[in-house]
Amino acid sequence: MTQSRRRVNLAAACRARGLDAMLVSDLDNVRYLSGFTGSNAALLVYADDRGAVLATDGRYRTQATAQAPDLETVITRSLGAALGRRAADDGVHALGFESHVMTVDAHAALSDLLAELPGVRLVRARGLVEALREIKDAGEIALLRGACAVADTALTELIERGGLRPGRTEREVRNDLEALMLAGGADGPSFETIVATGVNSAVPHHRPTGATLAAGDFVKIDFGARVGGYHSDMTRTFVLGRAADWQREIYALVADAQRAGRHALKPGAVLADVDAAARVVIAAAGYAENFGHGLGHGVGLQIHEAPGINATATGTLPAGAAVTVEPGVYLPGRGGVRIEDTLIVAGDTSGAGDEQPPELLTRFPKELNIL
Amino acid sequence: MTQSRRRVNLAAACRARGLDAMLVSDLDNVRYLSGFTGSNAALLVYADDRGAVLATDGRYRTQATAQAPDLETVITRSLGAALGRRAADDGVHALGFESHVMTVDAHAALSDLLAELPGVRLVRARGLVEALREIKDAGEIALLRGACAVADTALTELIERGGLRPGRTEREVRNDLEALMLAGGADGPSFETIVATGVNSAVPHHRPTGATLAAGDFVKIDFGARVGGYHSDMTRTFVLGRAADWQREIYALVADAQRAGRHALKPGAVLADVDAAARVVIAAAGYAENFGHGLGHGVGLQIHEAPGINATATGTLPAGAAVTVEPGVYLPGRGGVRIEDTLIVAGDTSGAGDEQPPELLTRFPKELNIL
Repeated sequence: MTQSRRRVNLAAACRARGLDAMLVSDLDNVRYLSGFTGSNAALLVYADDRGAVLATDGRYRTQATAQAPDLETVITRSLGAALGRRAADDGVHALGFESHVMTVDAHAALSDLLAELPGVRLVRARGLVEALREIKDAGEIALLRGACAVADTALTELIERGGLRPGRTEREVRNDLEALMLAGGADGPSFETIVATGVNSAVPHHRPTGATLAAGDFVKIDFGARVGGYHSDMTRTFVLGRAADWQREIYALVADAQRAGRHALKPGAVLADVDAAARVVIAAAGYAENFGHGLGHGVGLQIHEAPGINATATGTLPAGAAVTVEPGVYLPGRGGVRIEDTLIVAGDTSGAGDEQPPELLTRFPKELNIL
Repeated sequence: MTQSRRRVNLAAACRARGLDAMLVSDLDNVRYLSGFTGSNAALLVYADDRGAVLATDGRYRTQATAQAPDLETVITRSLGAALGRRAADDGVHALGFESHVMTVDAHAALSDLLAELPGVRLVRARGLVEALREIKDAGEIALLRGACAVADTALTELIERGGLRPGRTEREVRNDLEALMLAGGADGPSFETIVATGVNSAVPHHRPTGATLAAGDFVKIDFGARVGGYHSDMTRTFVLGRAADWQREIYALVADAQRAGRHALKPGAVLADVDAAARVVIAAAGYAENFGHGLGHGVGLQIHEAPGINATATGTLPAGAAVTVEPGVYLPGRGGVRIEDTLIVAGDTSGAGDEQPPELLTRFPKELNIL
């Protein structure tokens, strides 16, 4: 099973850190490692070959058995206490915990409990599972492809049905797009869909209003579909009717920057360099001040996850990462353009620098679509 | 402003605990106290009349000014550090923090910073804002009424359009209902809509599948609309065509229990007693084992918030609380019924025990609707 391979990887990461076991409390991490999707759970993963124990509450007894049939499940009202005791019983000495997730209160309660049990020591271990999650396996890539395809199809159908025409409101467009994604198989939108027209398109994260689409205006749509827990993320910007010169200019600029960013998605690339590859294009045209956010981010069980691609990001891009590339130029009071894709960073299969391009998952065309 | 009144209430709660200021890091709590809805923020609220300081990052400069015009805003990449320094500069000694929200890592970073600054001591202060949020003010009740009305209207329209008929899938019903809520003014569903037909209705939190509605089957629909950040929550159970005796029996039983629960919603009532008022009805009929969850929960900026109404809940029900009442009887392999309303607990306006009934916000009829 996919999940058991992931737990084997986590066990190796535990051994590398001198941990005997890891207490996983982040729900997405629990899902990643176990397949269980309930709203209350924790997982104890041993660093050796003893496997893992899933804790959840009585509401999820049946679901836990169905979703994680290969795991021992403990039904309890107190997840941390149950798994802490279990670790002590099993002779765990160094017990890692997710210090970037566990609250101060939860940690205090667990510490108090373990103080009465012999030998278990809590060790801060942030980001172990998130580091594994940066590199998507085949099952995850299949779900991401599916989510992106649902979004592509929904936007295509929206336009074919005349959903983007003068007089329609931002909210109406949002409603149609979300309905089309649901009808196409999504479990829901990836995040609050952005539909921003006219001057609103200059606001990077505008929320849809009753503002109406008008001829000659930009319409910027940033949206995604969630399928099997995985998120797609895509932005397209259109002009209704005839585009003005300034619109063509910034659209072409953002498209150039986005292409440069996509071409920089090579395994091993320094993250800040990927951001810079797109940013220099915009800066060279004099619009540096109008691109005020990072170039992209990892995407998977969370809409925003590691690796972040921005000017201050340390680290490098691993093969198999799923990331967005989404530069924008925003002119306050006039309008803005963002173009965003979700892609998979390819592996270097030859081992000799023979680079594959990233796999483009969001395949809706990126020409300045004039509707 | 509503938010400034809420901050005055928090300041009083701080003084009662001997705190000079409170660092609020939960985003819903920040929104409640400031009006700011961005995805990265923290708030420093002083216990005296010095007001409050909002910290967020550069993406939200304009939005913070627009949504919280009465607050000083600090733009920073490090919310906790900026507000911790500010507290030290302002002579705060006892600084409360949300120990049920702040992570171990965030707390360690803040502690390290404050160790270098004179005089500030971090004090665990869990649930201060959540306690204020239990009692809804007029603006919140108006938003909850609006959210419940959107859900009522959507379900009415769904049925009028023939959306609940044999042959349709659970997912199709979910899609239509969510689209109708969006069209009716919702910002989104309150949570993942539950549509459960036939044997699936026996699963309390079933997720919609391709299973089709059939004559003689239960259809259980648990859903809500989110409006202005506030959530509605309602469950209705239907039978398509002619109901069998066992269906009428458990429907009538759950309806009786639900009525008993609603009648028990009196200010000052012990929470466990409210749960018991409904539970005894179901237990007396021999179905105690088939009602495996709590009777209800508070609802507001979160779909589940204080007060919880269940058998182990301590505390009492305050006037002005918004809560659900949602008993169910689930017969595995056959089907189940849940009936749920959202209500506002009335105040005792006379001060002499003259009780008002709770205000029913979810007004869709509760007869066994045979479609």
